[in-house]
Amino acid sequence: MKTKAAVAWQAGAPLTIETVDLAGPREGEVLVELKATGICHTDYYTLSGADPEGIFPAILGHEGAGVVVDAGPGVKSLKRGDHVIPLYTPECRGCKFCLSKKTNLCQAIRATQGRGLMPDETSRFSAGGRPIYHYMGTSTFSNYTVVPEIALAKIREDAPFDTVCYIGCGVTTGLGAVIFTARVEAGANVVVFGLGGIGLNVIQGARLVGAGKIIGVDINPAREAIARQYGMTDFINPKAVDNVVDHIIQLTDGGADYAFECIGNTQVMRQALECCHKGWGQCILIGVAAAGEEIRTRPFQLVTGRVWKGSAFGGARGRTDVPKIVDWYMENKIRIDDMITHRLTLDEINRGFDLMKRGESIRSVVLY
Amino acid sequence: MKTKAAVAWQAGAPLTIETVDLAGPREGEVLVELKATGICHTDYYTLSGADPEGIFPAILGHEGAGVVVDAGPGVKSLKRGDHVIPLYTPECRGCKFCLSKKTNLCQAIRATQGRGLMPDETSRFSAGGRPIYHYMGTSTFSNYTVVPEIALAKIREDAPFDTVCYIGCGVTTGLGAVIFTARVEAGANVVVFGLGGIGLNVIQGARLVGAGKIIGVDINPAREAIARQYGMTDFINPKAVDNVVDHIIQLTDGGADYAFECIGNTQVMRQALECCHKGWGQCILIGVAAAGEEIRTRPFQLVTGRVWKGSAFGGARGRTDVPKIVDWYMENKIRIDDMITHRLTLDEINRGFDLMKRGESIRSVVLY
Repeated sequence: MKTKAAVAWQAGAPLTIETVDLAGPREGEVLVELKATGICHTDYYTLSGADPEGIFPAILGHEGAGVVVDAGPGVKSLKRGDHVIPLYTPECRGCKFCLSKKTNLCQAIRATQGRGLMPDETSRFSAGGRPIYHYMGTSTFSNYTVVPEIALAKIREDAPFDTVCYIGCGVTTGLGAVIFTARVEAGANVVVFGLGGIGLNVIQGARLVGAGKIIGVDINPAREAIARQYGMTDFINPKAVDNVVDHIIQLTDGGADYAFECIGNTQVMRQALECCHKGWGQCILIGVAAAGEEIRTRPFQLVTGRVWKGSAFGGARGRTDVPKIVDWYMENKIRIDDMITHRLTLDEINRGFDLMKRGESIRSVVLY
Repeated sequence: MKTKAAVAWQAGAPLTIETVDLAGPREGEVLVELKATGICHTDYYTLSGADPEGIFPAILGHEGAGVVVDAGPGVKSLKRGDHVIPLYTPECRGCKFCLSKKTNLCQAIRATQGRGLMPDETSRFSAGGRPIYHYMGTSTFSNYTVVPEIALAKIREDAPFDTVCYIGCGVTTGLGAVIFTARVEAGANVVVFGLGGIGLNVIQGARLVGAGKIIGVDINPAREAIARQYGMTDFINPKAVDNVVDHIIQLTDGGADYAFECIGNTQVMRQALECCHKGWGQCILIGVAAAGEEIRTRPFQLVTGRVWKGSAFGGARGRTDVPKIVDWYMENKIRIDDMITHRLTLDEINRGFDLMKRGESIRSVVLY
């Protein structure tokens, strides 16, 4: 079949909107009609050429929502008409990782996904006979896409696509880091470095679980008003204080119980650890640092009880937890609507990248 | 009163054995007659001058066992004749840290202890009217010492002093890191870097909780035979393999579930993290690094699920857990006897330091 898609032919160039060929779903695969897709900083990271694992030509996009159109042989859990969110972190429920109960990092299709291919080592996308690679196993910048069954979360049918697509990455990454990775308890003091799309969801996750102080840190003063709407109780502009670590330790009477880094800056990752409370404070890294960069600290920080860990896709098991988060949104336990600041057509997708780069959007969503 | 003690008059010089003055216990303090004390690498670290917080003159020693001789006003939990182990990490059961249930790092007397003083800001030791400082709140290189009540664990009276003194530091630090800090579960694969007095106790802790593979790593081949006696299943000499991290990942089919660093080498601390299993492997730092040194890694190591943490005094709450560990020893659940390789008089204490520096002893114990 044919589908309209935004193609990344090479690093550093804008996406081009065109009609490409899409082969039907094979064994264990599902054809999905996307209804909406968010534009995330990770798409930009790969498109910019900074991602050492970036492969071109590819169809980017990993934050979508849509409807099942067709299912290949062997697909049991999904049928035509089901509403779904594609998962760049699948959940096979059978690999060593899924069975460990200790991580959400299912490795069932890791190798092929990382090479831009479906599990059978081929791509479904092509143009003029030339293969185009998949991206993160999802390729949601195409009106139609093929996704393995284990990488699709079935969601309720009354959930609007143009907002719940954000649960495919940003919402779950932020909210999940609080709830699934850190397991923040009521009354705990939380610090969030970086108040973009991820940081705001960390903040509303902290509010959801009844955190005590919820302190936001950002060099952009415009973020203060927005973050307060999601539950932030205190704002720190690092440019306005002598030493952000000392300031946080003072504000929290000893340090953060939990600190989240949502930027990808290794210097801030160190601050996020060192502002944690002696004896138990946990620092959770969410942001993706530039290739080759390293974090560092004195080991004494850890020996005296601070914990340094990370979170990917919020520690969420996609097929199990994403439908729950959709429920929370539909029950008004969490908010998404105000975070979707821009709605675009696929033809306007490059404008979405520009808005993100300039910090003018929280989330831009493409509607098909 | 007078007491015989080994005095550290200055950094870098041998200890001198002499008779010093010891004032009686004040409010909340207890006079203890030491029966035995281990010589630990931390004593050497301070004596060498490398410890930036070292204070002289001082009476070192922090791994003792003895008998209560007298108690100051207000002491309720101990009486003359009780057998005790002094605790350099006290347990007041009333401070924010003790009450958090998340850490053993009681801070009730941290400030004065760090300055070589009893909680009332004075020292009990002196010579010719000149004060001599306490060390780690314990000063077990003296036949008699004064210790705050909250820094004494009461133990059973049938436990031999010359072996259970080792529970005052080394045994608890290693065993506790496994049991209290990491909470290693049966079947988990464990890697131990450094097979000295701490590492051997990590190994027997791993064996006690039913760990799967227990892999020891040391550049000293002589450690292999000893470590196997305590439960090590596999030995790696880093000098004999190309890449110790890759070797461990292969040997454990993906990486260690728990890795312990018992050396204090920041390069090894990085290896100990990076040999951990993706998704859940935990690296626990026990060794004390040289002043100013830093650990580093790529944040991707943490984002993909590895956890970097530390352990001090094995995460043990001294008054609660040390008596339990003494019970385990008396019930033959753990072994200590073979680790006490040398027994010395106080007059021979400098020889104990020499044996340790040359790696010839596991533990030397001074008997009073």
